[in-house]
Amino acid sequence: MGPTVDAPSCALPSRPYRLADRAVSPSGTTVTVGDVTFGGSHVVVMAGPCAVESRDQLLQTARAVRAAGARVLRGGAFKPRTSPYDFQGLGRDALELLAEARAETGLLIVTEVMDSLDVELVARYADILQIGSRNMSAYRLLERAAGTGKPILLKRGFQSTIREWLLSAEYILAHGNSRVLLCERGIRTFDAEFTRNTLDLNAVPVLKQETHLPVIVDPSHGTGRADLVPTMARAAVAAGADGLLIEVHCDPASALCDGKQSISTEAFGSLMGELRRLGPFLGRAVA
Amino acid sequence: MGPTVDAPSCALPSRPYRLADRAVSPSGTTVTVGDVTFGGSHVVVMAGPCAVESRDQLLQTARAVRAAGARVLRGGAFKPRTSPYDFQGLGRDALELLAEARAETGLLIVTEVMDSLDVELVARYADILQIGSRNMSAYRLLERAAGTGKPILLKRGFQSTIREWLLSAEYILAHGNSRVLLCERGIRTFDAEFTRNTLDLNAVPVLKQETHLPVIVDPSHGTGRADLVPTMARAAVAAGADGLLIEVHCDPASALCDGKQSISTEAFGSLMGELRRLGPFLGRAVA
Amino acid sequence: MGPTVDAPSCALPSRPYRLADRAVSPSGTTVTVGDVTFGGSHVVVMAGPCAVESRDQLLQTARAVRAAGARVLRGGAFKPRTSPYDFQGLGRDALELLAEARAETGLLIVTEVMDSLDVELVARYADILQIGSRNMSAYRLLERAAGTGKPILLKRGFQSTIREWLLSAEYILAHGNSRVLLCERGIRTFDAEFTRNTLDLNAVPVLKQETHLPVIVDPSHGTGRADLVPTMARAAVAAGADGLLIEVHCDPASALCDGKQSISTEAFGSLMGELRRLGPFLGRAVA
Amino acid sequence: MGPTVDAPSCALPSRPYRLADRAVSPSGTTVTVGDVTFGGSHVVVMAGPCAVESRDQLLQTARAVRAAGARVLRGGAFKPRTSPYDFQGLGRDALELLAEARAETGLLIVTEVMDSLDVELVARYADILQIGSRNMSAYRLLERAAGTGKPILLKRGFQSTIREWLLSAEYILAHGNSRVLLCERGIRTFDAEFTRNTLDLNAVPVLKQETHLPVIVDPSHGTGRADLVPTMARAAVAAGADGLLIEVHCDPASALCDGKQSISTEAFGSLMGELRRLGPFLGRAVA
Repeated sequence: MGPTVDAPSCALPSRPYRLADRAVSPSGTTVTVGDVTFGGSHVVVMAGPCAVESRDQLLQTARAVRAAGARVLRGGAFKPRTSPYDFQGLGRDALELLAEARAETGLLIVTEVMDSLDVELVARYADILQIGSRNMSAYRLLERAAGTGKPILLKRGFQSTIREWLLSAEYILAHGNSRVLLCERGIRTFDAEFTRNTLDLNAVPVLKQETHLPVIVDPSHGTGRADLVPTMARAAVAAGADGLLIEVHCDPASALCDGKQSISTEAFGSLMGELRRLGPFLGRAVA
Repeated sequence: MGPTVDAPSCALPSRPYRLADRAVSPSGTTVTVGDVTFGGSHVVVMAGPCAVESRDQLLQTARAVRAAGARVLRGGAFKPRTSPYDFQGLGRDALELLAEARAETGLLIVTEVMDSLDVELVARYADILQIGSRNMSAYRLLERAAGTGKPILLKRGFQSTIREWLLSAEYILAHGNSRVLLCERGIRTFDAEFTRNTLDLNAVPVLKQETHLPVIVDPSHGTGRADLVPTMARAAVAAGADGLLIEVHCDPASALCDGKQSISTEAFGSLMGELRRLGPFLGRAVA
Repeated sequence: MGPTVDAPSCALPSRPYRLADRAVSPSGTTVTVGDVTFGGSHVVVMAGPCAVESRDQLLQTARAVRAAGARVLRGGAFKPRTSPYDFQGLGRDALELLAEARAETGLLIVTEVMDSLDVELVARYADILQIGSRNMSAYRLLERAAGTGKPILLKRGFQSTIREWLLSAEYILAHGNSRVLLCERGIRTFDAEFTRNTLDLNAVPVLKQETHLPVIVDPSHGTGRADLVPTMARAAVAAGADGLLIEVHCDPASALCDGKQSISTEAFGSLMGELRRLGPFLGRAVA
Repeated sequence: MGPTVDAPSCALPSRPYRLADRAVSPSGTTVTVGDVTFGGSHVVVMAGPCAVESRDQLLQTARAVRAAGARVLRGGAFKPRTSPYDFQGLGRDALELLAEARAETGLLIVTEVMDSLDVELVARYADILQIGSRNMSAYRLLERAAGTGKPILLKRGFQSTIREWLLSAEYILAHGNSRVLLCERGIRTFDAEFTRNTLDLNAVPVLKQETHLPVIVDPSHGTGRADLVPTMARAAVAAGADGLLIEVHCDPASALCDGKQSISTEAFGSLMGELRRLGPFLGRAVA
């Protein structure tokens, strides 16, 4: 028994999302991009640096995460930064480097688009368009991204309810794009002393009941601490995540952004080994 | 990268807790109660009804959780209820029933004490004294409970930071009682539509770095939904929990409180089987 | 229009509080203690130090707040502190000093009781028993405090909903004590960089619709900053508060606790002058 | 004293915002638009419907708020809605109607731009560009809006810290646009049962110390309830607000969005009368 036991039970008369509703596809939807399938038998791991910083940094990291078993390379070209005086990303140059890394490693590319005016450009390079946490409610951006036909990785707003998140997915689905991946990345709570955000793993089984869309977890933003990432990656898989999004940097100490939450390529290799051993006991392969 | 990237890095000059500090016992502390050890090789499972409602309900549930592998029986005698018009617990009669269940099953007993005037009474019956979420900052109560010499299960205040929680543990330790178990049970956030609380599994690896005390997770309050309990129990073990506290009721639909978050004895049996299979791949036995 | 526009409208079928319900006394209840009436034509100001520290400190502050127009003297004898190593209050000695200050100045005394075992003692000295924010849900303590027949100043739990707060008041009312003052003192939110808490002034007009009990505002804890106290005291009166609870110290820089949020006796004098001029334009006298 | 008394004092080594810093203009900045000046001797009232719904609705409301003393007309043309199935605004047609209302009444126009692709269009009509709560961190949008040279009403993200808000203002200032108005509109907290948001009036005096920019308060979104708007408007002025943004509808019951928080033209008239009487006692005229 606890504090909210007598709170009003506010049963929803009906789910306000339609196309995102689990009832549309009770056994779940798979989203296939190239030779990678989300929502199926495999937990798909996406990894790479927070931001693309240089050719060396990106290629070195890409090769390492590929070797360790990642299937998708992440890397930011356009970076939403709280301060206008912080590094804002390399933009188009970063996109070119991502394409080069794809050509060399065969990894798919996921990268963020943060403004409607960049959608066309980013979509020419990315295999998966990421909508960041700050933009989950930028509805016109969602619609434009949807219009490209590319799969969308929709991060949860750090201040958004699950209901609001699913309605943002609904905007994409309603614009004719059915390939949506939901990514839990931590929410903002009253306690941010030890971790940057509170990773909400409750959201994983909740989403499995509410929607048919695959669910990804980002333990890097979800904790903000490299030392906690492996443990929470493991917990995310145990909670039923269909994929992981992990920040990996070939030299975290020199990272231009988010170095504190980026794990090294070595740590990533160890984590992948551990997840591969654990996966079968949770009914999933990890790749 | 994300919303709080530029937030002030507020490095603590030193940890404000002393006896609770990990540095006191870098390899962690074990807490032994009877033949049960917390913080060692085994994940200890505590289970039972939210509240003791009747002799039949308690004994039936106790036998079932014992058979499934639980080592400690939970059950509330004094219940903190948000409304004065809700069931407040059977009080002393419940304590007698708990003692009877212990005598029959050999399970240890954990039960909540919610007021200083009841400490002596509850300590005569309980093997472990529970301090509930609402009372985590009731410092005089903590001291009196500490004074009994009984081990204390200290639940996190649903609105308390990890720092505040560890300082509450420090009150107990500073009063000469070293047997403290910390129990994460979900925190209050802006989203309470789908789950009653947000289970903060980040807290588990954080605590493993900050303190030497064993860490328990309560997925029942942490979710408020019986259907999510098994998944989050699994995630808690993957996150490194030393124990679980789970509400189990022989007939959840008829429970006088928290029926929605109580799993049936059958579901508990299945969960225990699953955890026993999973444990070794996380380096722990489950019992 | 804004973020939560489509959130479920969760109309309460009925108010869960009965005796606290506005319908019980549609024009509002007044609470009279000695020659002071809360909830009537006057905004009642309670002022004094966070903690009683010494005879000089208390008497000097008491004389000054009396001269400036306060009617009730606040001062903590038993202090709930997050750390066991911080000053915990002078206990019984503080109560004696409060009684002496009352005898000299004619001010009524409000002081906190934080444990059931102290209720009888504190009630022998206090004119108004304060239940602190951390103990708003300590239901046995509420009942024992109610049983003394003394008026109760019930502070809002810093992460308690208005509903939970009113149900805590209901515990007191249901135990036969009708003299309850509700005190808003700031809630815990995601932003605590500039202020210690977020003073929730929305709560004042909400309470005026939900309940008949007088509403007090504590801008000292509500902001945690002496420099913001006068502005927010003014805003609280504009929002309809029936009283203010303000920390005043004869030498804030030397205060043993909460010095940062204590205003000086001079600042208090200025504030009272300002409030007396403003009051009539809000339909209230200030005293 | 209270719950966070021992929390780490995390003194900022320096303010991360530069152009927004109070030190840049210690006596405060005024922002002048047409014949209206924000941040000066007058509290400026902006009022109008949530969304432009029809010619009649807009003109009727505009005339009424003009007559009552408002100086700026608000009205949404592009509406960010949580659900894709809700009314999304009349778009360009609404902008034409706003221009017509301006021509007739002489009121200035403030309206929201929610996507970079609409900036040029909206800027052709608006006197003040509003950036909504959901888009406070849409940095490219902020820059594009800044580039139009129009004054910007920057609403606080409903879960953004004051620091983040000021850094968003910094984006605008750093792009050469110095006419920024900050608008507090309520934040998201754990309690949303009685009010849609928690209006954070602490933010008003905090901003007055941190920045030189004028501060506006929106009690309509800040409460979500028409019946609370007048009281909180009064409290906002008492807290030092330089302006108010209030939703007024000629027929709230028929509003296509946010009807529950829109006050009638009659209620607005009464409120303006009250504020005009109150203003001088707070050192401000109201207009």
